[in-house]
Amino acid sequence: MSEELKFAIELAKEAGEILMNGFDRVRVEKTKADKRDILTNMDLEAEKIIIEKIKQKYPSHQIDGEEYGRIKGDSDYLWILDALCGTKYYAKGIKLFNVSIALWKGDEPIIGVIYLLTIGDLYWAEKDKGAFCNNKRIRVSDIDNLKEAIIYLDMASSDKLRVEEHKLFSKRLELISKHAYRFRALGLGGFACCFIAQGGYEAYFDLSGKEEVLDVAAGIVIAKEAGATITGLDGKFHGQNVSHLIITNGKIHNEFLKLLNSK
Amino acid sequence: MSEELKFAIELAKEAGEILMNGFDRVRVEKTKADKRDILTNMDLEAEKIIIEKIKQKYPSHQIDGEEYGRIKGDSDYLWILDALCGTKYYAKGIKLFNVSIALWKGDEPIIGVIYLLTIGDLYWAEKDKGAFCNNKRIRVSDIDNLKEAIIYLDMASSDKLRVEEHKLFSKRLELISKHAYRFRALGLGGFACCFIAQGGYEAYFDLSGKEEVLDVAAGIVIAKEAGATITGLDGKFHGQNVSHLIITNGKIHNEFLKLLNSK
Repeated sequence: MSEELKFAIELAKEAGEILMNGFDRVRVEKTKADKRDILTNMDLEAEKIIIEKIKQKYPSHQIDGEEYGRIKGDSDYLWILDALCGTKYYAKGIKLFNVSIALWKGDEPIIGVIYLLTIGDLYWAEKDKGAFCNNKRIRVSDIDNLKEAIIYLDMASSDKLRVEEHKLFSKRLELISKHAYRFRALGLGGFACCFIAQGGYEAYFDLSGKEEVLDVAAGIVIAKEAGATITGLDGKFHGQNVSHLIITNGKIHNEFLKLLNSK
Repeated sequence: MSEELKFAIELAKEAGEILMNGFDRVRVEKTKADKRDILTNMDLEAEKIIIEKIKQKYPSHQIDGEEYGRIKGDSDYLWILDALCGTKYYAKGIKLFNVSIALWKGDEPIIGVIYLLTIGDLYWAEKDKGAFCNNKRIRVSDIDNLKEAIIYLDMASSDKLRVEEHKLFSKRLELISKHAYRFRALGLGGFACCFIAQGGYEAYFDLSGKEEVLDVAAGIVIAKEAGATITGLDGKFHGQNVSHLIITNGKIHNEFLKLLNSK
């Protein structure tokens, strides 16, 4: 395990502890894109501690966080954070949320740590070293056809799509509901990536096309190292541009791509 | 707290313990409606212990369980069980599942206990006594318009719908995706009912119309006691017939009903 991975795991645990102790004092600081898109004091607290520790240990590295934005540096290395992924649940006292920490080198994902702290599961992966859940190696599922596949859908900003965008959204949603076994939508992209890595779902798709890299930066590493194939709608990987991202167990990737691109 | 509720909570905890200790020895016993609709040894073990205890304590009561089917008795009281709700997740080692225990008197829901054991949250409710999560009173949200509402969708057997059924499924799915803030689908109806009761989601809808009472029998009590309105598409409550069930926070019920029934 590299020093950076060990460090990322420590950070995730530390942020997790802050969040677990914060239920009683969580408050909404402001709304973002809309009334339901909230930022709480706990998002800020958890992210701040992570940023400070990274700056201390890797002063030249860049950092991209959900709340404090981009912190530039001289290095190609970029830490991508979502210290509290699942704020809407958290703010209601619902224990579905995670800490997500990734290290990328430019457009190449290197390290991913996702801590589903409320259920006690720590997922992590490192380039070319495999993916793990609580130190146990995990692998994508063997399901090789869409008819048996469970598809996870992300739908960031789906209420803000333009007419043409919503037409495509609806068309693809209908195709998926017709040709796959089931679709799922938790509002937790990080969970979905982990579940694909563990064989519980077969695919992730950013249905609205508005996904930001913060939500999947760590999940991409974990899914990939568990055997997933990751591309855009054109079948190519586009690094930090994750609009319409597709992650599958590999075995259904071509069939799913074809479905999504069908006229 | 009534004796029956105390008893149901004990049962849920006991079944939960069996499940938590069963991860290492879970195996698929058989498939049901299709290859992914699995039954494991742990479903059977957890349900069996609950059934035995109910028979011992309330020998005249009827019991309806997911795996062992209906056990008849002289009484109007009916225990409705899903000892392991979320089998697909459980079998993959993913810690999203719950124990669900309900007591109904004919078509009237009396007691509901849902134990989200992996996150340590115990939800319970009793007719006219309010709904609770870990002894803390919970209430539905105040959101009063669909545009800001998060809608949970159930889609049991969506891959088996006939052509006409799927047309309605798709039409309503499009309407919801267009007029609500977001939709969610976890494959865990019990979680959804609890989250509505806690104000995290505003509505539940059985989109495929194939839902069975086992999955929502306890959730109905918890949501109702937290302030939810519960009906079918016609605006009336149909007891154990939960096809196309609609549960909302009450404030958006009419607007949601109108949307679902729109031509």
